[in-house]
Amino acid sequence: MSIRIGILGYGNLGKGVESAVCQNPDMELTAIFTRRNPETLRVRTKDVKVLHIDALEQMREELDVLILCGGSATDLPEQTPKYASMYNVVDSFDTHANIPAHFAAVDAQAKKGGKVGIISCGWDPGMFSLNRLYANAILPDGHDYTFWGKGVSQGHSDAIRRIPGVKDARQYTIPVPEAVEAVRNGLNPELSTRQKHTRECFVVAEAGADRNVIENEIKTMPNYFADYDTTVHFITEEEMAKEHGGLPHGGCVIRTGKTGMEREHSHVIEYQLTLDSNPEFTGAVITAYARAAFRMNQEGQTGCKTVFDVAPAYLSAKSGEELRGHLL
Amino acid sequence: MSIRIGILGYGNLGKGVESAVCQNPDMELTAIFTRRNPETLRVRTKDVKVLHIDALEQMREELDVLILCGGSATDLPEQTPKYASMYNVVDSFDTHANIPAHFAAVDAQAKKGGKVGIISCGWDPGMFSLNRLYANAILPDGHDYTFWGKGVSQGHSDAIRRIPGVKDARQYTIPVPEAVEAVRNGLNPELSTRQKHTRECFVVAEAGADRNVIENEIKTMPNYFADYDTTVHFITEEEMAKEHGGLPHGGCVIRTGKTGMEREHSHVIEYQLTLDSNPEFTGAVITAYARAAFRMNQEGQTGCKTVFDVAPAYLSAKSGEELRGHLL
Repeated sequence: MSIRIGILGYGNLGKGVESAVCQNPDMELTAIFTRRNPETLRVRTKDVKVLHIDALEQMREELDVLILCGGSATDLPEQTPKYASMYNVVDSFDTHANIPAHFAAVDAQAKKGGKVGIISCGWDPGMFSLNRLYANAILPDGHDYTFWGKGVSQGHSDAIRRIPGVKDARQYTIPVPEAVEAVRNGLNPELSTRQKHTRECFVVAEAGADRNVIENEIKTMPNYFADYDTTVHFITEEEMAKEHGGLPHGGCVIRTGKTGMEREHSHVIEYQLTLDSNPEFTGAVITAYARAAFRMNQEGQTGCKTVFDVAPAYLSAKSGEELRGHLL
Repeated sequence: MSIRIGILGYGNLGKGVESAVCQNPDMELTAIFTRRNPETLRVRTKDVKVLHIDALEQMREELDVLILCGGSATDLPEQTPKYASMYNVVDSFDTHANIPAHFAAVDAQAKKGGKVGIISCGWDPGMFSLNRLYANAILPDGHDYTFWGKGVSQGHSDAIRRIPGVKDARQYTIPVPEAVEAVRNGLNPELSTRQKHTRECFVVAEAGADRNVIENEIKTMPNYFADYDTTVHFITEEEMAKEHGGLPHGGCVIRTGKTGMEREHSHVIEYQLTLDSNPEFTGAVITAYARAAFRMNQEGQTGCKTVFDVAPAYLSAKSGEELRGHLL
């Protein structure tokens, strides 16, 4: 019997989850839920139901896992606890500072409902977090580094779009190659914000806008750009559509550490992602954790979990025997 | 209270575990067990007991986890099941084809004794296996590649040493850079054995030995060298001691895969290790899994486990709150 999946929210991430569910033969997409008028949604999976979010009040018998594809700012803090009392849920909550509060809220509701809620799945938080944990457990005497990119930062692109005279914008975060190289070589550099990443911006200006003013506004924007070496390119709408339509991303987590009675040996552990589509890869990770949520709940577990609490075997559709035979 | 660790076997791996236990403040090394005369062992940890293996019959109250540091050929198939009935145990059993039988034997004894036995910990099997599993679960539509090296292969070095006229030898396994590059670029190449790795051998010949004969014996040796491009260098004993005294190793696991309703997006997941000391890194991994074995058993779990069955949080000395706050 397939694992019956519901998706709440049909933006980039919801679409990424949709395509991931298609690739997993042990799952079926039962319904997509939206706050919009369901009739306005054009979904790509054939014959899937599209329902208003209110329908979730009566779907408990029809879904095994509800995947929450809203934003971390306002959607998930409300939705994940609420639906964890009714469904096994998975989300990609990524506001690091608020994870403890979100965990507590989801834990209380999931326990009340006898369900499992797995929060903060994706690649960071998610696969990057896992790699930080494994590497720290193996090499307690060491240093952690995380580099992001080259990839599109949606938050930074949005910040540029809010500047008067800007019609469209895309911002790429790029690791400084010399910094990554120094870390890989075990030099344990102390790196400032500016030394770790650069920011490259592609901007479509409105006709008549002063490009120097826009460029200055970007480069001096506190938090977003002021602490970085930032490059600004003005391009046409056609160039934007043709060359910057995708949402690539990636990055790496590196831990360097020492072993030996005299700390005489050095080691480097590196985990690296190169992603054509950030939302589709994130969706693929969440979908694997949806399988885990279902199986853990079937075994009687309840409450809030993170990637740290999920034994890897739960993520795979293969049996323990198959995994030991082919992947160990 | 510290986790009380025993080590059985004091070769390279036992010494690697010893130095790893020193680095983990929540553990203490209670005793080292050996089949040799304990008085002949010079151990590096101050004031640690050195006992004959027979003493393990009466140490159940004094150890929380016994780490088995013997070889996969003859030691572990006998020792791991035997001691799993008395202790929580961890081993690095690495004969891939025999893992199912080893698992079954350890599982039966561990369940009988109410203990946890974690087998096949290290980096391959171990961390590489984990990364194959995670990457397969995330990208079901994709290709797996594993490259080993650059590093010393002990088995291949031993095979050279058995050739008449060879006094000492060290063999390095080296990934073919073009093959790794093609995989990273998502080309999904079909690679023969010869196209994936080369083998470089450093040999000290006995006085008067025919070097051409030795070189030919190496290069034509079935299974070990015949299927590879192999280079042989003859060096002096001094050069061997000075330049080839270490046991470095490493490698990478890469999975490339597609997502999207039209398979239109490509992704690359790579996990890479660069290790100065293979036995110390392997020892560090096993030691982290010793912590997991102890904690899982404290929660009432029993039986045989692999890295696939161990939730990552069990590996860390930190609490769930600390992990969520700092590493997620």
